[in-house]
Amino acid sequence: MSTTEPRLLWRDITVFDGLDTLPEPMAVIVAEGRITTLVPMREFDDALAEGCQEMAQGAVMTPGLVDCHTHLVFGGSRADEFERRLEGASYEEIAQGGGGILSTVRATREASENALLEAAVPRLKALIDDGVTTLEIKSGYGLTVADELKMLRVARRLGEAFPVRVVTTLLGAHALPPEFEGDSDGYIDLVCNEMIPAAADEGLADAVDVFCETIAFSVAQCERVFQAARVHGLPIKAHAEQLSNLGGSAMAARYGALSADHIEYLDDAGVAALRDAGSTAVLLPGAFHTLRETQLPPIAALREAGVPIALATDANPGSSPLFFPTLMLNLACALFRLTPREALAGMTAHGARALGLQDLGRLREGAPADLCLWDVENPAALAYAVQPGRLRQRIFNGQLQREITHEH
Amino acid sequence: MSTTEPRLLWRDITVFDGLDTLPEPMAVIVAEGRITTLVPMREFDDALAEGCQEMAQGAVMTPGLVDCHTHLVFGGSRADEFERRLEGASYEEIAQGGGGILSTVRATREASENALLEAAVPRLKALIDDGVTTLEIKSGYGLTVADELKMLRVARRLGEAFPVRVVTTLLGAHALPPEFEGDSDGYIDLVCNEMIPAAADEGLADAVDVFCETIAFSVAQCERVFQAARVHGLPIKAHAEQLSNLGGSAMAARYGALSADHIEYLDDAGVAALRDAGSTAVLLPGAFHTLRETQLPPIAALREAGVPIALATDANPGSSPLFFPTLMLNLACALFRLTPREALAGMTAHGARALGLQDLGRLREGAPADLCLWDVENPAALAYAVQPGRLRQRIFNGQLQREITHEH
Ligand SMILES: [Zn+2]
Ligand SMILES: [Zn+2]
Repeated sequence: MSTTEPRLLWRDITVFDGLDTLPEPMAVIVAEGRITTLVPMREFDDALAEGCQEMAQGAVMTPGLVDCHTHLVFGGSRADEFERRLEGASYEEIAQGGGGILSTVRATREASENALLEAAVPRLKALIDDGVTTLEIKSGYGLTVADELKMLRVARRLGEAFPVRVVTTLLGAHALPPEFEGDSDGYIDLVCNEMIPAAADEGLADAVDVFCETIAFSVAQCERVFQAARVHGLPIKAHAEQLSNLGGSAMAARYGALSADHIEYLDDAGVAALRDAGSTAVLLPGAFHTLRETQLPPIAALREAGVPIALATDANPGSSPLFFPTLMLNLACALFRLTPREALAGMTAHGARALGLQDLGRLREGAPADLCLWDVENPAALAYAVQPGRLRQRIFNGQLQREITHEH
Repeated sequence: MSTTEPRLLWRDITVFDGLDTLPEPMAVIVAEGRITTLVPMREFDDALAEGCQEMAQGAVMTPGLVDCHTHLVFGGSRADEFERRLEGASYEEIAQGGGGILSTVRATREASENALLEAAVPRLKALIDDGVTTLEIKSGYGLTVADELKMLRVARRLGEAFPVRVVTTLLGAHALPPEFEGDSDGYIDLVCNEMIPAAADEGLADAVDVFCETIAFSVAQCERVFQAARVHGLPIKAHAEQLSNLGGSAMAARYGALSADHIEYLDDAGVAALRDAGSTAVLLPGAFHTLRETQLPPIAALREAGVPIALATDANPGSSPLFFPTLMLNLACALFRLTPREALAGMTAHGARALGLQDLGRLREGAPADLCLWDVENPAALAYAVQPGRLRQRIFNGQLQREITHEH
């Protein structure tokens, strides 16, 4: 084998392959952007090391993390609202003061594309520094054709500017904008007849999402959105069963949903529908934590049915201002009683699956070399302890992005 | 004013002074390890800037964070136990497998002083990187005279090796070691008659702590420990009312406790006792989160009585493997409904007060210059969002320790 690029070699690595921890120490070789060798140390032949750059010995390697549900691009901040609420302001007072999601919509509309980009950069860096190599970014705070496309353009630019794969999702049906008050069907017309076609024409959306909830859009309205998405060949997904059981997940499954997300109130029929459609269940413990929810998602039923469970930050300014992916591993274990293995699979193999990117999120021969090397004693420690700074090496598309050393 | 050291100047800063956010943008000057000027920008005279190094404009400045309750030094890991429990192992199976606090005791006894130091360094760095400039470190996993002193020596060495103030606490009465099974009074004899005198003789302990709980030591046993501490002139504190209401806090208050910590089950008499003794209430939301507790500490009663409320990581391998101080601000708001202002005071002014170090944790003229400059929109954002990497500058004892730039 001859190549001009150096091959990268790790020896004696504990490997979590995206689904499970391999039973013995492994050697990993990366060349030309892919994992070319994954072999137990006891079978390692030193001839394999020829021409390789030695990267590290020991430590834990996982696929790069996949954050399959984020609202990373937005204008403004809701820190003030957070503070006022804890200081005793009522929801009415906060709404009168311009709070809630519409305050984010207002700030996002007012922001230029460059301003939105600049605001998102520190948040994206926080995700990257904690191991994310692929993330989804939704629109949903513009709620006009121009402002939704602006958000999607920012998402695309983030993917071009940073060593990370960005998948974009049009979430026009996120909230009813004030100018459509009393006419939610009229707004859904706009989403279906103008927003989706425009996003599809410009190639700005990789998927279409909806917020199916009593405080957002009905199942029938969301179905219209999915029909429009289908016309334009875009895969769909849904925020569903977060606060009540409307049957949004089952309807989304009928449209072959990539995923149903939140799903605290999902019932057995909904679980069966996801299973039959091959959809992924996306759990969002950050919103559960922030909103102090108590209704647990149907973990046992999902396991029983074999529905893949993904996990994401839901990074957003209102219900999950949490820009720290490995914290989600801990929250999923503490709040939802996922096992560390399930939690890690949720941010690797199953997270990728929720995006329709089955080749990512796996550490196996032939897979793209998006990898994290962690300074932890075993993979479970990533969920057990919450500690920034444990990512020692980050490999994106076969390239070492950073070697982290902390100087004091 | 003439000095050979450069004075450091920040302009147009939003200042949280340890108790509250100042109402207008400030200028801050540091010289010779202290804050020499804290003045509103509108009163700022450019003559003040003469001979100053310009450090930054804008952003949020707080006192360096004070983490007044940690168990940062320990051997081994409990990640395996965490995983086994989530995979369904019973407490009995885990105990049979050598789990629980005694597994940490075993690993800590087996570890050399250097090995303990090395294991603690990444955890300490995580705290420092998130703004900690003063922290308390307890013993309590050695449970022999030699092993408790070993832990305290490691704590002292960490304070010498890193730009951080370390306060040490002897916590011999943390758990009953296996060799004293059935003879807890005998073990308390050892703590009182040998451990405390030895730690005092060697100057290794700045305070003495106990774990007063049905699963640990009784109020009467803890009182004996406090009497021994008093003989040696050491201040005291207590882990109390975490899992039940034994009256440990009130007893500790009678000995002038610096603090009573956890206190989920503290009653009105306990609150009054803390108030009358001038003790600080230390809340530990990390353990509350990890143990999935539901009994809330008596926040309203503490506020009403004017008992200062501190907040700490409780960083430890069992009930709070959370090495991320600003996460505690978020948890305290989300779980305990503290306001962001209370949470921040809890890790600055009140945290310092819990250590008897009233000159620290304040941003005011004359105070030691332990400072953090944060890339956030306002102080409340530190509690609102959870995001590593927001600390831009860290000043320890008047010296810039780091200017953080993230390169990708
Ligand atoms: Zn969402
Ligand atoms: Zn403790």
